[in-house]
Amino acid sequence: MPVRALWYDRAGLHLIDQRRLPVSKITRTYRRVEDVAESIRTMVVRGAPSIGVAAAYGMAIASSQKGWTPDRAAKLLGATRPTANDLFVGIEAVRSAWASGEDPLEAADRYRQQIVSECQAIGFAGAPLFAKRSNVLTHCNAGALATVEWGTALAPLRVAHDRGVDLFVWVDETRPLLQGSRLTAWELTQERIPHAVIVDNAAGYFMRKGDVDAVIVGADRIARNGDVANKVGTYEKAVVAHENGIPFYVAAPFSTFDPKMPTGAGIPVEERGEEEVRSMGSRRLTPSRSGVRNPAFDVTPAKYVSGFVTPLGVIPPSRVRSIRRPSRSPG
Amino acid sequence: MPVRALWYDRAGLHLIDQRRLPVSKITRTYRRVEDVAESIRTMVVRGAPSIGVAAAYGMAIASSQKGWTPDRAAKLLGATRPTANDLFVGIEAVRSAWASGEDPLEAADRYRQQIVSECQAIGFAGAPLFAKRSNVLTHCNAGALATVEWGTALAPLRVAHDRGVDLFVWVDETRPLLQGSRLTAWELTQERIPHAVIVDNAAGYFMRKGDVDAVIVGADRIARNGDVANKVGTYEKAVVAHENGIPFYVAAPFSTFDPKMPTGAGIPVEERGEEEVRSMGSRRLTPSRSGVRNPAFDVTPAKYVSGFVTPLGVIPPSRVRSIRRPSRSPG
Repeated sequence: MPVRALWYDRAGLHLIDQRRLPVSKITRTYRRVEDVAESIRTMVVRGAPSIGVAAAYGMAIASSQKGWTPDRAAKLLGATRPTANDLFVGIEAVRSAWASGEDPLEAADRYRQQIVSECQAIGFAGAPLFAKRSNVLTHCNAGALATVEWGTALAPLRVAHDRGVDLFVWVDETRPLLQGSRLTAWELTQERIPHAVIVDNAAGYFMRKGDVDAVIVGADRIARNGDVANKVGTYEKAVVAHENGIPFYVAAPFSTFDPKMPTGAGIPVEERGEEEVRSMGSRRLTPSRSGVRNPAFDVTPAKYVSGFVTPLGVIPPSRVRSIRRPSRSPG
Repeated sequence: MPVRALWYDRAGLHLIDQRRLPVSKITRTYRRVEDVAESIRTMVVRGAPSIGVAAAYGMAIASSQKGWTPDRAAKLLGATRPTANDLFVGIEAVRSAWASGEDPLEAADRYRQQIVSECQAIGFAGAPLFAKRSNVLTHCNAGALATVEWGTALAPLRVAHDRGVDLFVWVDETRPLLQGSRLTAWELTQERIPHAVIVDNAAGYFMRKGDVDAVIVGADRIARNGDVANKVGTYEKAVVAHENGIPFYVAAPFSTFDPKMPTGAGIPVEERGEEEVRSMGSRRLTPSRSGVRNPAFDVTPAKYVSGFVTPLGVIPPSRVRSIRRPSRSPG
């Protein structure tokens, strides 16, 4: 069974609680838009495409609750996390349907299907980048958990692996929330793709040693000039890859491209709570009198990106400006 | 009271257990060379200059145990950790004294005093780099805990702070063992130097934002051409600092410079056990079927180093080749 981050049925919106993996695989069910919003804010569900779909279902759920309007529900869900463009695209897909009298649930289902088929198309578009035996580094989790199914960065690796290519994946653990060691490693284990978890600090060590042939990551928002907001640490990996002549790819569905954002300088970077850095479970990691800063994302300038893996193929940063979702989605 | 990582008296060698800070400040006492070796291997004591001094006292302790020769004790202690040059310099300082009939304990005391006065000299030599209000980033712990007293990277910051300079320190947490969030943050708290702990991934974010004026780190071994082995992650910070035009300084006593090592390519990089990455206390962080790699150090090429802060002053990489400890140590 392939991994699915979320699904909807009459009982409500079901989310795998991504905070608990890989220790426990727990599914939580949500029946109120307020609770869907909280699940996004607290990262029960995370990954830009997945939170877009969760928010789309949150809108659909709101439409059958008393006292909610399309705009009020959109405002609540849109205030959960500021960086991922997909959140706003997912909300708008259902808001506009609801406001114009269409079935909000059908709109949410359609949005989910679109994201899943775009991620599948990313897999086929990107797989030729890994046609030969490759050691590939990835940061954070841009797998099925982040995108409902398939993944963005991981989709080409799944397809290449299925085709019998000998792949090895370096998995940055991705502090503070360890989406790499907990989630990406778990997905790769499910698919039996060989991999090793490393601390984020070690990525440069293996790049410089010649043990990394390519880097591929997902994205939370891509500006018109090709600047990329993604999980904090992505910028460092991109700079060090560039310095070592290693190609650096960013994989994303149409919903991550923000045509209204000229450059990365305008992308809001969420700063999350100190506790994510101060402690791990019951263990305190910092003196209580020390300050803590916890930006969740950073912005990688387009000049470090070798190519964007999109549902329509691999494009250079210069072509991001003109990217459009076709009237009929591929797949 | 300034922090002291270790001291020796009739009861034996006393080490602050650095694995337990900042939660508990526990001192352990060692009376057998086998136990001193184990304390170095398991990182009760860590930091290149501190492990050099601990090993020097380990040699002195061996000289009063039955059945130990200078060479046998040197071999045991030298096999604990491969990367730090100071370990071998500290061992040799006592081995040669012991082998030639001098008092090994006096030789160990002399070695400790030399390291402490060199670190103090580093503080005064480096403080002018931070003569104005500065935001300074550091990686790992190169403070008093790492060097017995004063520190290497932290010594100039202590001196500048004492002179009233308005300093703010960005503290990389330094996975996997968190020497930044646990040890550097603790030392800065003791000295009331303003600081914030960040995950290692966030260093580049703050550099690119313009919030970092300089980077200063310690070192485990410096080759003749100026290549620097230091805690894993140092290389990434150096590359990203270089990319952003931020000066990158390496502070070290004479014992860290290895005149027998032509370039960084020959420096052995210790790879430590998987458990450091797999779990935190009782909490599992990776799937059990996932692989793990855990290099403890990396090598930063000399071209990324703006200057070496030595007891004799700040020198460029090109002058590392000719660095010599003066016949009388400064201080």
